[in-house]
Amino acid sequence: MEIQLAVAKIAKYATSESGDTVEVVERPHGGVSVVLVDGQRSGRSAKNISNVVARKAISLLAEGVRDGAAARAAHDYLRTHRGGKVSAEMIILSVDMETGTLVISRNTQAPVLVFEHNSWRLLDEPASAIGIRPRTRPQIVELPLRPGLMAVGFSDGVWAAGENKGGRMDVLELVQSFPTTLGARAYADDILAHALQREKGRPSDDLSVVVLRVGPMAHDDVRRLSMTLPVPPRLYNTWSQS
Amino acid sequence: MEIQLAVAKIAKYATSESGDTVEVVERPHGGVSVVLVDGQRSGRSAKNISNVVARKAISLLAEGVRDGAAARAAHDYLRTHRGGKVSAEMIILSVDMETGTLVISRNTQAPVLVFEHNSWRLLDEPASAIGIRPRTRPQIVELPLRPGLMAVGFSDGVWAAGENKGGRMDVLELVQSFPTTLGARAYADDILAHALQREKGRPSDDLSVVVLRVGPMAHDDVRRLSMTLPVPPRLYNTWSQS
Repeated sequence: MEIQLAVAKIAKYATSESGDTVEVVERPHGGVSVVLVDGQRSGRSAKNISNVVARKAISLLAEGVRDGAAARAAHDYLRTHRGGKVSAEMIILSVDMETGTLVISRNTQAPVLVFEHNSWRLLDEPASAIGIRPRTRPQIVELPLRPGLMAVGFSDGVWAAGENKGGRMDVLELVQSFPTTLGARAYADDILAHALQREKGRPSDDLSVVVLRVGPMAHDDVRRLSMTLPVPPRLYNTWSQS
Repeated sequence: MEIQLAVAKIAKYATSESGDTVEVVERPHGGVSVVLVDGQRSGRSAKNISNVVARKAISLLAEGVRDGAAARAAHDYLRTHRGGKVSAEMIILSVDMETGTLVISRNTQAPVLVFEHNSWRLLDEPASAIGIRPRTRPQIVELPLRPGLMAVGFSDGVWAAGENKGGRMDVLELVQSFPTTLGARAYADDILAHALQREKGRPSDDLSVVVLRVGPMAHDDVRRLSMTLPVPPRLYNTWSQS
């Protein structure tokens, strides 16, 4: 049995920087948490917002604070520091090895998709964005870890992909078409690829996908982390001249 | 061109938890940092130490603090809180997109391996562990990002692998035997596999490997992160009964 986490993200077309922030942290009592924050607007200002919100949530989770409290704290922090004028959407997906559960905390319009007992469903109860109204709380769902269990979260750019370009993507229909034996990496890559296709390769919003899955087998006792990020052209364009 | 980061780690034999902590953070001005901390002793007490030290360094790096200052702060923090009685070894590897450099900060006995200009070399200048003596500073090397550039860091368990079991591993010789076209993932996995083999599958210390590489090609503009972690038997053993 192994926990698989995969993230894929790309910035809005013609912006150098995604306004979404995704950060991962090991939980002190075992397990992992991933935080996806979609800051209001795009580019640098959105990045600043999503970054401070994600950092606040991550640093609390790293200290062992429970997910619901970390989400509330991130809200209070943003609301205090920006006077209730700036909002952000946030998803926290956690595997808690202490309780043996997958914990999903949503402060988003877009749903989170869950695969459990051999079928997909939407977690789409109303959940306010953080930063605006007093005492905003997350919608939280906690599910026992079992082989095959999967949660898919994404920013609203993915949920609305294609909306202004001839046909909105149906993410639920899409994941239902995938083999359920696919790993988290393949799910994240394929969902992002389909969203990009709907946006004709030039996304009108930042696109981020996060997938957590309980794989039926662990090949060994090794923990692995991989990351790739493109080098911006402004950097490597100078290399050939030096 | 893409930045590839790979981490592989496994706990000392018959301990449930690695005393090493590896954490990754996106740098606010672009790029990524990975922090590897090897806490004194092993198991839970080492984990607590390595965890707080890594969190301190990571949270500063996330705020845009430069690597050398983050390493000094982590030292001061540990020394203050444990009265100079507890040590830790720490490596910070960073890709700084603002300066276009790879920054290597060592507070370790074990060297860091660097591949540059088509050859491998050791960064092995003396560098004190943190937490003990006043005003400890890291040994820092900064290299311009170029295709093929690579840095390999590891905990002392890897450096000393096999020492008490019939023959110590030569990590430099090992990486020199790999094709230089291998990606970061393959390097990390192969080095860990060799270390495990030298330890006869039962490592007498926590083993952690971190690899940062500048890949010559980027396939797309997507940022990706993947993570897998084994589920402990105490969890999945209860599943079949429920």
